[in-house]
Amino acid sequence: MTGTAPATFTADDYRARMERAARAAAEAGLAGLLVAPGPDLVWLTGYAPTAVTERLTLLVLTPGRTPVLVVPALEAPDAARAPGATALTPHEWTDGADPYAVTAALLDGTGRFGISDDTWAMHLLGLQRTLPGTSYACLTDALPMLRAVKDTAERELLAAAGAAADQAFEEIRKVPFAGRRESEIGAALAELLLRFGHSRVDFTIVGSGPNGADPHHEVGDRVIGLGDMVVLDFGGLKDGYGSDTTRTVHVGEPTEEERRVHDVVREAQEAGFRAVHPGATCQDVDRAARAVIADAGYGEYFIHRTGHGIGVTTHEPPYLVEGEEQPLVPGMCFSIEPGIYLPGRFGVRIEDIVTVTGDGARRLNDTTREMVIVE
Amino acid sequence: MTGTAPATFTADDYRARMERAARAAAEAGLAGLLVAPGPDLVWLTGYAPTAVTERLTLLVLTPGRTPVLVVPALEAPDAARAPGATALTPHEWTDGADPYAVTAALLDGTGRFGISDDTWAMHLLGLQRTLPGTSYACLTDALPMLRAVKDTAERELLAAAGAAADQAFEEIRKVPFAGRRESEIGAALAELLLRFGHSRVDFTIVGSGPNGADPHHEVGDRVIGLGDMVVLDFGGLKDGYGSDTTRTVHVGEPTEEERRVHDVVREAQEAGFRAVHPGATCQDVDRAARAVIADAGYGEYFIHRTGHGIGVTTHEPPYLVEGEEQPLVPGMCFSIEPGIYLPGRFGVRIEDIVTVTGDGARRLNDTTREMVIVE
Repeated sequence: MTGTAPATFTADDYRARMERAARAAAEAGLAGLLVAPGPDLVWLTGYAPTAVTERLTLLVLTPGRTPVLVVPALEAPDAARAPGATALTPHEWTDGADPYAVTAALLDGTGRFGISDDTWAMHLLGLQRTLPGTSYACLTDALPMLRAVKDTAERELLAAAGAAADQAFEEIRKVPFAGRRESEIGAALAELLLRFGHSRVDFTIVGSGPNGADPHHEVGDRVIGLGDMVVLDFGGLKDGYGSDTTRTVHVGEPTEEERRVHDVVREAQEAGFRAVHPGATCQDVDRAARAVIADAGYGEYFIHRTGHGIGVTTHEPPYLVEGEEQPLVPGMCFSIEPGIYLPGRFGVRIEDIVTVTGDGARRLNDTTREMVIVE
Repeated sequence: MTGTAPATFTADDYRARMERAARAAAEAGLAGLLVAPGPDLVWLTGYAPTAVTERLTLLVLTPGRTPVLVVPALEAPDAARAPGATALTPHEWTDGADPYAVTAALLDGTGRFGISDDTWAMHLLGLQRTLPGTSYACLTDALPMLRAVKDTAERELLAAAGAAADQAFEEIRKVPFAGRRESEIGAALAELLLRFGHSRVDFTIVGSGPNGADPHHEVGDRVIGLGDMVVLDFGGLKDGYGSDTTRTVHVGEPTEEERRVHDVVREAQEAGFRAVHPGATCQDVDRAARAVIADAGYGEYFIHRTGHGIGVTTHEPPYLVEGEEQPLVPGMCFSIEPGIYLPGRFGVRIEDIVTVTGDGARRLNDTTREMVIVE
């Protein structure tokens, strides 16, 4: 699901985004863009239906024409209250009608269309069946960078979300960890994110001891003990824009090896950050971070990509991964989050959101990256 | 998103469901079923990833073969903890690999497959590109009744969710409505659902006065006043199974017209209920309820279908709508929820979940359907 649209943006902002998207579609040789409920629709119109169901809602953007929102009649009043509603024409359909035929009447029957990644397969199949002459590419393939370059207002919202996540970390580092369950620390982190202005918590990973070696472990019943390394990875949406930060803390004094692994990850994160500048590619950032870890002998224990974009979702293009040759552009915002995971023992990950500037990068999270000792 | 799987079901239950689904696929001439995270995956395996992202997770059911779960390596430990995990073979893929190529190697390259409705278009397009000889039908088209007939344990869970929703109504009818905002009553309803055992609230519609005439209005800032009709439609998941009930209450004494409209809806709901028996069709139920409203002269104000199935979601097949000739089968569970919506004035809707029995139907909600007067 997606968050609600921030009040920051007006119908004119949404109109400009829709025009930009339609232009980008035309430049990519597409006959139009089809956008179902989800983050793309939030970004383009500010509209997020209460529930995403089998009833088709679909924004149709055709270069040079007014945007049309195909919408179930029942949901039309809700859609009309969206901040971008005045920039589009609603096209209602009623239970019993065929929503694909309704949509098909708006489309070039031999065109190629970009379609939002998370559109239901049911709807894509309905369109393919109704208009067999059309073809489709998902938006991440067709226009991967459509939402990737954030404008000033968006970057400010991301910075505010990052600052709130930093506040949450500054509070959580003061609480006792030893003797408490991961799930309790996770709940405390969620409360802190909400207290500091988040409307939605997407994840609060608390990976203590061996659980930290599973990068996607969330929280468990494990009781944290003295001597544990603890990965804290948390984020969500504040005013419609995402936070996502990771710090790895230690309960009591770390061993030599724990210090060394943490240092390697910190240096890898720093190397990734230093690799960010306009014209470098996504994979350059991944390679820079990965090289530090590989050189230290831990290459096989860094088992995921280095980062992902962030905006109206906490997970979107650009992806910082080997093979992604997309050049970095000022205004892009993404995570840099290398890690080392020693199975059955412990893990370390350090993550900041950064934004590409005119000549380098700026961090949107800025708590210390040195290892924090907790009680 | 989907709920968590109820602890009620074991790996053997999930194995049996997967075998049943694969058999149904074979009988429908399909080479297999492809199921992404969502309610179908919860029902088949008990697995609901923490987040549904662009990383492909896909259950591959092929008649006569062990089920395979294509899963990102990062999420494999989580998937292995699902209650149905021992009934399937995990097939991990790592960032950088092509998950569609990984999946394609498991599939008949010229087969027709059923694919879960809410699979991302991105993934369907990836499969279509990788295996151009394959074709696809969404599960609602290919096997609409796959989850529709509930077994005894499932019906008990739905009955328990319905009983909890009834408890919530019995409490909310005691609170003062006049002078409070719809949003306050909605929040109170959500709290009650959680207090009576729901793990998740899907909707709390509070439509007072003219807002009640918009069937999908949720809650607003409108202050409820003496003389208002108020539609209360609320539900969510309890132990992984859904509730969904509607009662329309009145603040103080209703007018003659309000009583008459409420009576018509109550009789329509009763007529729909009486039309339910094995062998009747879905549209028969819709027609029975609609006829009462049309005969009373309000036909144009009943602007939605009569009901929808419920199970691990609060909205699924079968749909009780004109044109749906699916016969009713004992064990099916769905809503019957006719309404009359007088634009700008008020609305009335009455909804119960019912289950088809050997010779008729049984209600899973059972608070009074007479108009309740609130303060």
